[in-house]
Amino acid sequence: MKIAVDAMGGDFAPGAVVEGAATALFDFPECQLVLVGHAGKLKFYLEKYGISNHPRIEVVHAETVVEMCEHSTAALRAKKDSSITVCAKLMKEGKVQAVVTPGHTGAAVAAMKVLVRTLPGVDRPALAALMPGQGFDFLLTDAGANTDCTPLNLVQFAVMGEVYAQFLFGESEPAVGLLSVGGEDVKGNDLTKSVFKHLAALKMNFTGNVEANTVYEGGTRVLVCDGFTGNVFLKCAEGLAKSVIHWFKHSVLGNPLRMTGAALVKSAFLEVKARGSAEQAGGAPLLGINGICIIGHGTSSPLAVRNAIKVAAEC
Amino acid sequence: MKIAVDAMGGDFAPGAVVEGAATALFDFPECQLVLVGHAGKLKFYLEKYGISNHPRIEVVHAETVVEMCEHSTAALRAKKDSSITVCAKLMKEGKVQAVVTPGHTGAAVAAMKVLVRTLPGVDRPALAALMPGQGFDFLLTDAGANTDCTPLNLVQFAVMGEVYAQFLFGESEPAVGLLSVGGEDVKGNDLTKSVFKHLAALKMNFTGNVEANTVYEGGTRVLVCDGFTGNVFLKCAEGLAKSVIHWFKHSVLGNPLRMTGAALVKSAFLEVKARGSAEQAGGAPLLGINGICIIGHGTSSPLAVRNAIKVAAEC
Repeated sequence: MKIAVDAMGGDFAPGAVVEGAATALFDFPECQLVLVGHAGKLKFYLEKYGISNHPRIEVVHAETVVEMCEHSTAALRAKKDSSITVCAKLMKEGKVQAVVTPGHTGAAVAAMKVLVRTLPGVDRPALAALMPGQGFDFLLTDAGANTDCTPLNLVQFAVMGEVYAQFLFGESEPAVGLLSVGGEDVKGNDLTKSVFKHLAALKMNFTGNVEANTVYEGGTRVLVCDGFTGNVFLKCAEGLAKSVIHWFKHSVLGNPLRMTGAALVKSAFLEVKARGSAEQAGGAPLLGINGICIIGHGTSSPLAVRNAIKVAAEC
Repeated sequence: MKIAVDAMGGDFAPGAVVEGAATALFDFPECQLVLVGHAGKLKFYLEKYGISNHPRIEVVHAETVVEMCEHSTAALRAKKDSSITVCAKLMKEGKVQAVVTPGHTGAAVAAMKVLVRTLPGVDRPALAALMPGQGFDFLLTDAGANTDCTPLNLVQFAVMGEVYAQFLFGESEPAVGLLSVGGEDVKGNDLTKSVFKHLAALKMNFTGNVEANTVYEGGTRVLVCDGFTGNVFLKCAEGLAKSVIHWFKHSVLGNPLRMTGAALVKSAFLEVKARGSAEQAGGAPLLGINGICIIGHGTSSPLAVRNAIKVAAEC
């Protein structure tokens, strides 16, 4: 299995990406990696992490990179030699089976759509993020690929999410819910009200509207929403998880009894932290394109990059 | 100060509301309460909580209630004698200075708009929820009053939020941020991109786009968004806070060392839980109407009702 890694993507590139790739090479002996990025800049890090001459790694040069502050489609048009474009070309030409990028989400989605194309019947690809619930996990889709959506887009996200959930959870009829502001059928905005009618008419295990708090309690395997709302959901969960740990530390400090207790439960805390972290998930697959693309968080650490490569290999 | 309480609103009404009102009567001696609801049904609970003949409470009968599953404006038209409509009428007639309701948000907003009216220059009122950040708190507005918004609506939410934040936090120029999917100016959906331009042109301390994770780290006092996204944000935070506690308990159980530690930090945990809970906040004020209306969670407990009454009294 050959995987292209956008080594210039993300806030800590290329260092964090090369470090993550080095770990992945060691952990997943079946993977061959193609690091895409500025060869001159990558050289230093390849040497630093001791993988310059590794038999399962190669470097493909890309002169530029789409910066996080750029407009995605405009940047892709202007920078035909950007690392994400080169990754997409490699997949289009069949030279790699998957692409991993912690870079600009919009640029990655646009490059995949234009070069790799969507599957028949899919207008827009969607990011499917795996979220931890109280009893079991659920997929959030779209988690950020499409900031403005039509009802038909969301219906397609639901169908793609259902198929991916069948594969991921091994369930024949995973419960599909629509993210809304109330559990009752009448609640929602114009978009969700229209989507609700369409989903109710489909042959799927559609369980209706689901609220952002109750979804954690279980019963939903695929949570459907537009990419703006999905991205807010994903990041809100991440921010709150960090805050809980912050408040707890603050509440424990200076109190000897609590500090002793905290030392005893530290390992439990680390388990909880790992459960909620974006690092563990690594990245979310972009559903609906004619290939495999895993998009990671812009702030991806080496561990996150390593785990995103793992997700790509599994897909 | 006279406050009307919609005693039929919410999932646990009227029991939880009457119990919360009884606590509020005891805790806030300056408040007079008007319980609005079905007099026959309220009688039992008034006796149960020992406030049947309390000098600072009176009951105003309302024959019906807007159920959570009903469409708000249609229900208000059909039920002219619903508890929330009677509350709004009492405020319109100057018989009470504030209204507290844990009932149907949409119905409360519609009743206030139609009967109490908005302030000059305000097209739509907005819910302002107080959220706990890592260093300090921030206001989320709109937290759920308007599921579909125009750019102008959001600009008005920003201005109202700024004024309320000045009062609440005692700051002359509170930082106003726009909830989006990236911190960079170009990120967002069609709605936020349009709002961004308008806010940048206003005389306010506009700090640009803010992501749902970074807002918890501080720097933003007012987080502006449409009511659909805001409600998802609010409930996602609530659901995740509960999940963290669930995971922690799960991780501790069966391990004697961890259980000992957990017992020692239990008080710290309760502090963290209180910090994040909707119960403590009680309710969110509806900004922009010609009066005071505090809207609580549909699942409000007696403590939440008591705290919503406290917020009303402070406003």
